[in-house]
Amino acid sequence: MKRKIDLWIVGSVGIDDIKTTKTSRKNLLGGSVPYAVAAASLYAKTGAVAVVGSDFPKAFDRRLNRLGVNLDGIQRAEGKTFRWACEYDANMIERTTLSTELGVFADFKPELPDNYRNAPFVMLGNIQPELQSYVLDQASGAKFVALDTMNLWIETALPALKKVMSRVDLLSVNDGEARLLTGKWNLLDCAKAIHKFGPKHVLIKKGEHGALLFSQDEIFIVPAFPVKKLVDPTGAGDSYAGAMMGYLAKQGRVDRKTLRHALVNAAVVASFGVEGFSIECFEKLTAAAVKSRAKELTGMMTV
Amino acid sequence: MKRKIDLWIVGSVGIDDIKTTKTSRKNLLGGSVPYAVAAASLYAKTGAVAVVGSDFPKAFDRRLNRLGVNLDGIQRAEGKTFRWACEYDANMIERTTLSTELGVFADFKPELPDNYRNAPFVMLGNIQPELQSYVLDQASGAKFVALDTMNLWIETALPALKKVMSRVDLLSVNDGEARLLTGKWNLLDCAKAIHKFGPKHVLIKKGEHGALLFSQDEIFIVPAFPVKKLVDPTGAGDSYAGAMMGYLAKQGRVDRKTLRHALVNAAVVASFGVEGFSIECFEKLTAAAVKSRAKELTGMMTV
Repeated sequence: MKRKIDLWIVGSVGIDDIKTTKTSRKNLLGGSVPYAVAAASLYAKTGAVAVVGSDFPKAFDRRLNRLGVNLDGIQRAEGKTFRWACEYDANMIERTTLSTELGVFADFKPELPDNYRNAPFVMLGNIQPELQSYVLDQASGAKFVALDTMNLWIETALPALKKVMSRVDLLSVNDGEARLLTGKWNLLDCAKAIHKFGPKHVLIKKGEHGALLFSQDEIFIVPAFPVKKLVDPTGAGDSYAGAMMGYLAKQGRVDRKTLRHALVNAAVVASFGVEGFSIECFEKLTAAAVKSRAKELTGMMTV
Repeated sequence: MKRKIDLWIVGSVGIDDIKTTKTSRKNLLGGSVPYAVAAASLYAKTGAVAVVGSDFPKAFDRRLNRLGVNLDGIQRAEGKTFRWACEYDANMIERTTLSTELGVFADFKPELPDNYRNAPFVMLGNIQPELQSYVLDQASGAKFVALDTMNLWIETALPALKKVMSRVDLLSVNDGEARLLTGKWNLLDCAKAIHKFGPKHVLIKKGEHGALLFSQDEIFIVPAFPVKKLVDPTGAGDSYAGAMMGYLAKQGRVDRKTLRHALVNAAVVASFGVEGFSIECFEKLTAAAVKSRAKELTGMMTV
């Protein structure tokens, strides 16, 4: 019998070329899913739902497998894997997309393997809202669903986005997306408006400035862990969300205390992630290192 | 015998005209000192060191007196009080200075009244670094000195700034100033460089994103209190620093725990300050309201 899946995450898997002012790296394992599942797998049995092309290196499968990720949900299609190239400015704040080739991702239609359908935790990564709804329809055992999205869907597919938003427990966006989605500037107003769309929990991420979780009348503010050497910020939001969901899935419950611990862990895991390219830092990350940095971050927040 | 002063704060006193997209207000009590001393006076006996012109309204003196501020350090010069006019953008993030008239502030030379000289706590607000050194020379009883500065002095008076920096315990700057001062981007690197200039404590303020206190090998991260109605952000940094110093002066000690409580109080007091123009919110602020919001903020930070 296949091992039970605690959590699955749908999104993109790609091959990235990334330039920073210090280093240039080609053919990296990228896309939202590898970052998210690598982070989540630190805590819980996680499945990946995505599509790759016939050019997808077997070595990438092996690396994800070694992290404990279940790949039953990865579709193998004829054609090229999604490719993306970007270049960062000197301070790693602004980035320019140099090229995007959708490849097989253009026709992606997520289908859940049978062994994923009863998973209690679900992370709908940033894909078309119609597809998020489509895959959520298959998730008969879902108990806690988180949703990520982006400016593109807010601007071009708002009705579909609102539909899927009304079905989820947590929306994860950055501050700019929260403002675009609601037309409000003040983040308290943004969160209030998003609560009305459905999600009980609204996570607003602010990169180096940390994140705010708005759960009905309660707010939790969690800083980013101050990183000594920022190597590549790509995927930080994905590993943040992945770690949060993995932590919740491991605990098997979503209460105030557990959510707060989940976010501290998310901040810590994301901070490790940006200390290297792709998922490289997760491949040498130990539970002890996460625990130690979580203690450090908690110390920085304690009055 | 005059009542002992716990803390004095030197800087500017002015008359402000402030436009936001919602309101336009003229002839407001402004400058760094009124915000800072109004905030500090919530905690400790605070003296103001500044200069005003012959046009300075007596009503402003009375308002500061009512808050318990000692005005012995305010010089009364022939001429016009410092005047400043600014306009905020719709989101209160960017502001445009419409006019600046230095008036008597141009020839300001701070002199400490006798009853200030033994005060243990000193806040050197943002004035020329030479004048900060000049007034610090008179502070024979100073035990804990905080220093504020700005881009102008970093760019035009760096040697003098470094001189006064080497004599203080805490430097308070915003993230942009910390980066300009050190030529580093990463705030950990900025703080490390500033520690080498002398201050044991480096407070880096990030506005709505909160602040970080770097004390040797330890970091404290304190978020901003999420404000429902932002009316006027002018002076927020000054009331932040003022409240912090007032809190420390009241406790009469500067240890890890006290500093952290001081910063939570600073965040809270600054959040009240921006809910109105000038120092108006401090005039109706009660200790109970501060305490209650401090408890709320601490709750938002607690894992």
